[in-house]
Amino acid sequence: MALDVGMLGYRFMGRAHANALARLPMFVPDAPAVDRAVVVGRDEAALAEAAPELGFDRWSTDWRDAVEAVDVFYNLGPNFLHAEPSIAALEADTAVLCEKPLAHTLEAAEAMADAAASASVPAWCAFNYRFVPAIRYAHRLLSNGELGEIREVRARYLQDWLVDPTEPWSWRLDEELAGTGVLGDLGSHLIDLVRFLVGDAGGAGPIERASGQLRTFVEERPVEGGDERRPVTVDDACTAQLAFEGGAMGTLEASRTSPGHKNDLSLSIHGTEGSLRFSLERLNELELKRADDRGYETILVTDEDDPYLEHWWPPGHVLGWEHTFVHENAAFLAAVETGEPADPSFADGRAVQRAIAAIVESDERGEWVTLERGD
Amino acid sequence: MALDVGMLGYRFMGRAHANALARLPMFVPDAPAVDRAVVVGRDEAALAEAAPELGFDRWSTDWRDAVEAVDVFYNLGPNFLHAEPSIAALEADTAVLCEKPLAHTLEAAEAMADAAASASVPAWCAFNYRFVPAIRYAHRLLSNGELGEIREVRARYLQDWLVDPTEPWSWRLDEELAGTGVLGDLGSHLIDLVRFLVGDAGGAGPIERASGQLRTFVEERPVEGGDERRPVTVDDACTAQLAFEGGAMGTLEASRTSPGHKNDLSLSIHGTEGSLRFSLERLNELELKRADDRGYETILVTDEDDPYLEHWWPPGHVLGWEHTFVHENAAFLAAVETGEPADPSFADGRAVQRAIAAIVESDERGEWVTLERGD
Amino acid sequence: MALDVGMLGYRFMGRAHANALARLPMFVPDAPAVDRAVVVGRDEAALAEAAPELGFDRWSTDWRDAVEAVDVFYNLGPNFLHAEPSIAALEADTAVLCEKPLAHTLEAAEAMADAAASASVPAWCAFNYRFVPAIRYAHRLLSNGELGEIREVRARYLQDWLVDPTEPWSWRLDEELAGTGVLGDLGSHLIDLVRFLVGDAGGAGPIERASGQLRTFVEERPVEGGDERRPVTVDDACTAQLAFEGGAMGTLEASRTSPGHKNDLSLSIHGTEGSLRFSLERLNELELKRADDRGYETILVTDEDDPYLEHWWPPGHVLGWEHTFVHENAAFLAAVETGEPADPSFADGRAVQRAIAAIVESDERGEWVTLERGD
Amino acid sequence: MALDVGMLGYRFMGRAHANALARLPMFVPDAPAVDRAVVVGRDEAALAEAAPELGFDRWSTDWRDAVEAVDVFYNLGPNFLHAEPSIAALEADTAVLCEKPLAHTLEAAEAMADAAASASVPAWCAFNYRFVPAIRYAHRLLSNGELGEIREVRARYLQDWLVDPTEPWSWRLDEELAGTGVLGDLGSHLIDLVRFLVGDAGGAGPIERASGQLRTFVEERPVEGGDERRPVTVDDACTAQLAFEGGAMGTLEASRTSPGHKNDLSLSIHGTEGSLRFSLERLNELELKRADDRGYETILVTDEDDPYLEHWWPPGHVLGWEHTFVHENAAFLAAVETGEPADPSFADGRAVQRAIAAIVESDERGEWVTLERGD
Repeated sequence: MALDVGMLGYRFMGRAHANALARLPMFVPDAPAVDRAVVVGRDEAALAEAAPELGFDRWSTDWRDAVEAVDVFYNLGPNFLHAEPSIAALEADTAVLCEKPLAHTLEAAEAMADAAASASVPAWCAFNYRFVPAIRYAHRLLSNGELGEIREVRARYLQDWLVDPTEPWSWRLDEELAGTGVLGDLGSHLIDLVRFLVGDAGGAGPIERASGQLRTFVEERPVEGGDERRPVTVDDACTAQLAFEGGAMGTLEASRTSPGHKNDLSLSIHGTEGSLRFSLERLNELELKRADDRGYETILVTDEDDPYLEHWWPPGHVLGWEHTFVHENAAFLAAVETGEPADPSFADGRAVQRAIAAIVESDERGEWVTLERGD
Repeated sequence: MALDVGMLGYRFMGRAHANALARLPMFVPDAPAVDRAVVVGRDEAALAEAAPELGFDRWSTDWRDAVEAVDVFYNLGPNFLHAEPSIAALEADTAVLCEKPLAHTLEAAEAMADAAASASVPAWCAFNYRFVPAIRYAHRLLSNGELGEIREVRARYLQDWLVDPTEPWSWRLDEELAGTGVLGDLGSHLIDLVRFLVGDAGGAGPIERASGQLRTFVEERPVEGGDERRPVTVDDACTAQLAFEGGAMGTLEASRTSPGHKNDLSLSIHGTEGSLRFSLERLNELELKRADDRGYETILVTDEDDPYLEHWWPPGHVLGWEHTFVHENAAFLAAVETGEPADPSFADGRAVQRAIAAIVESDERGEWVTLERGD
Repeated sequence: MALDVGMLGYRFMGRAHANALARLPMFVPDAPAVDRAVVVGRDEAALAEAAPELGFDRWSTDWRDAVEAVDVFYNLGPNFLHAEPSIAALEADTAVLCEKPLAHTLEAAEAMADAAASASVPAWCAFNYRFVPAIRYAHRLLSNGELGEIREVRARYLQDWLVDPTEPWSWRLDEELAGTGVLGDLGSHLIDLVRFLVGDAGGAGPIERASGQLRTFVEERPVEGGDERRPVTVDDACTAQLAFEGGAMGTLEASRTSPGHKNDLSLSIHGTEGSLRFSLERLNELELKRADDRGYETILVTDEDDPYLEHWWPPGHVLGWEHTFVHENAAFLAAVETGEPADPSFADGRAVQRAIAAIVESDERGEWVTLERGD
Repeated sequence: MALDVGMLGYRFMGRAHANALARLPMFVPDAPAVDRAVVVGRDEAALAEAAPELGFDRWSTDWRDAVEAVDVFYNLGPNFLHAEPSIAALEADTAVLCEKPLAHTLEAAEAMADAAASASVPAWCAFNYRFVPAIRYAHRLLSNGELGEIREVRARYLQDWLVDPTEPWSWRLDEELAGTGVLGDLGSHLIDLVRFLVGDAGGAGPIERASGQLRTFVEERPVEGGDERRPVTVDDACTAQLAFEGGAMGTLEASRTSPGHKNDLSLSIHGTEGSLRFSLERLNELELKRADDRGYETILVTDEDDPYLEHWWPPGHVLGWEHTFVHENAAFLAAVETGEPADPSFADGRAVQRAIAAIVESDERGEWVTLERGD
């Protein structure tokens, strides 16, 4: 019995997840079977074209069609559309995978996490970079204590598509629709990875306090296909400092205005016994300095016994960005099937949202802000 | 009307091509439709398991079942099995894609190229690295003369899986079955890329002469699952020098005994106006030094208008090794549909085989050997 | 008439400067001639050995011997010894080169800068990394506006010698003697370079505000050659965020506890037209992404017409860390001879000290601190 | 009692060695003392200017003045001037350091090595890259067998100054004066390092056979300051294959026509237990893959107990190209003082010359050439 999938969103993320679902039978044969049942959007013509291309049986312009009629609901819509459909799905006992950031406001994220806590099905927040083999390999190393006590982390995510002032306005640049700008879009990945690798595996504990600054360098942009210009009401770039409960510290930076960086998420972690580095533009590689090494060793994380690699190609036959979605979907569907908890969950998404909210508040108040805790 | 595909081989290359075929509808929607009709092999149990996983309707242990009953025949078998089925297919007006090297002997390759010349359907030799976006981008640069007159090329392909003397014997290590060792397996890619980029796009003309040396470092290996040991009758590593008709020169190296190199195909090309470098382990990148540059610029070849990239993800969302097969299959099937010539063709495969034969002969005779020319 | 040089300090920095002075005649023949007249320290036996090795005519244990009797006074002592001898020298019309950070307290730095303002001789603060050819080359690019309006800067300086808890206590770890820890020692270089490259050449203006955090990971250390342990009263590592008057923003990080980093000062700068990167461990290289480039070009800054390179070797014959001192001493002595202003000056040293003080205060108060301005 | 030094040559190599001699007292205090007594050349005006700048007491236009009157003779002249003065010096019991390649012809090199064999003083062939700390560190690793049995080596040395066809003619481009072109100038370094690291430390034994090809891409060049054009009678670029007695194999490439490469000597060595890589443009680094590593570790060879490093700066404070001369001169003068054998010696220089001669002969005959052996 295949799981029926409903998917809200059919563009960038829609293709990424539909492709992942399509690839599971060949590469993760023990993943639960799925039927791509219905894809949801607002533009009928675009939906009619996308549905067969993405392998969906039918399409709908009403997400309510999807959340009850299916077993699994993928919420890949814009941020402001994350809460209501996801909560409705959970209330209908439909498992949910929701794209990051979990919501456009902390309030919405809290409501979603509350709904998840009451639900009988997994509620998954789709931080796909946890499913990069090199990141998972790093998680294993850190969990084993191989870098010792973690003290310092440096995370940044740089793109450059907003450096051009003629790049058109989009929902991502509007506070009402997106919540924040690069902080929520790219910074949320950083916060999640820092929590996952440093806070969790590395033992540094939760992020306790944050200090941040946000910048909007281009204050209005043209609307595509017209003379209108709309204000940009979110951040183009931001920086933050973090303090962990265990005493470690860190920095974050996210920017869509860094020329020469297309999709450059990078991480550095220093512990008492070693260090590691990672960059998403070279995602098959992990740089590792162990206690007895003098410098960083560049490891190509493509061996058969590396995370997720039993499914793919021989050593050295590198994977790409999209493979993270295959690994993520396999894990998500397994959780749906077995009833195991979502990982990452809506609670993780909420924790990230609290860090985002603290950074925004810190920027406004000019001081460190303690993150909200508790469920 | 979909093209019926028959495929000889269901392991590494079988998965690579079956996956590529499966992905075409979503990512290259204008590619000809295919039905994966029949997969051929010798091991019934393995076939019965592989056929559904790879999306084939049925399986057979006799390649004769496949070459006539289908529209397109993929020959992904061991080298010694390239000639007979491929020629049979061509004689039955079935288009052929044959894995590299084209054959296990020069004689077989000549016969295959002759059959291709007489055939009414494309006969494609599957040098998939021509379909790396960065390689195709380099080809475009070279064709435009942006590096000036090409003088020097350096090509190497290093792996390390044979450095371990307990690695078991396989057909790849037997001269009767494989023809040569690393020279034919990895060196054939180098020779093809050098012909494609330097000889063709760069204008250096055909490879005129070659000088080479071959080494077998581990002379016998255990047969898996027993006490038997068999002799290794092919090369573990080789080097060669090349001289092009137009005066350029080059070096080749291929090895399966280079620790720390998993799948490291790299190229350097120097012309009067600039230089370029590429490495397969970082296949999204091209390093380019143009006339007015002081050093190499590292280009992430993932922009929308880069070769093949209109099909995939936004800039910076990197591709992997397997994507070369998607691009290659799209091009092959388009040639089948339109009747355009195969590119690369069996004639290209024969030209590579002549270089291989010249290098082997040079190693035996201790002198430079002039490559055979003409059709 | 050679300039008589008195030098306080004969260990690490003493050797670096003495060596630079010794090399001037061969490599910068138009630099003013100097006599290494007297070297000053506290340990007579060590001085007696060091003086001839470093080329000094005599030695003394009283810095008062040096500040009046010479033309030029090099203050290379520990931070707490910067103010009094330097001010005494300036009051005696003796030109001063003082190592960074300018002082151990902001108060002392202010007094030194005041003395410099009243003096008739140059008062130089020895930020030697301004004299790396690649840094000076970057300064030229930025001054010419080649990166457009500067928006983001990232500066970090990582070492690892304090990751070992058995590394002995030294004056550098004592607040009374050093002022701060890694912030003053390594962070001062970052602040100076950020001011030089971003604030000055890049046009971002002064650093307006800072937010920082300091950490002491190892709270006491053994005294060498005994059983005593002393408290570490300064920072092992620190982070900071910066806001410039012109709207740009940045981050700083300095650490002596980052395994695998020996002397890793690195900088990234992003503007509207391009980006650049630099790392001190590869100090001959500058990575530059100009407006029309797709990625970073790696420039080996060793050509004849690159900054300072007319004095040295042919292109590609790389320089080392110590060469920065040769360039710096040539510039300093030229200022002494011509009476041109010091560059960098005690005023620069004071500006750095104000940023250090703001970061320390921010760490204590948990909020952004506005930097002091004015002379 | 200081050793009197006479030096033939005062330009590039003259400055490199004079600088090294000048720096010994401060950095290698136990090196034998020297007096820079006399510098020899043909251009009186240039000599008169160079002598004081390089620290020589006097100058002469007749090398015969130098070879007897001094204790140590540095022959830094053009290749055709290596034999006669060096032999004359040895016959006068004057120790000799002669720049590489040892001579312009094999005949001259044989005569020099014969003279050295009969001499009572060291006869040193100045392959300075043996004195790069990372190279010496690699030598130590290889001598200890840490890479196992060595099988493959790849050495190349690329420059680009001859890619410009207007670059003027010089003695280096004339067969009578230089012997060969890039093969002797840059290739000699490669051959020496391959012998040193692979043949000697790595245990692969002598180079047994070679196969090579030479190219002259620009066949005549303008004479500086006039209308004359002279033919280029040596190679601009060359490639070679090597076979070692112990079964290892290798490739060499040297070029002065590789755009974007200023002084790029690089080496790769593969053994049964590991691999290493080195590049002169990043000469402080060694990349090492040991048996238990998955990839290459980048080692900054600047620690106190690394070769030669006890003389210099703290870890991470990188050295430059010129430091190789300081290390080399210290070793040479120590050999002069103690009477220990030269290392590298004229016999090493002759062995390199025999490989050069074999490569040239192979290019002419189109076949492998066995190297001459014996003393």
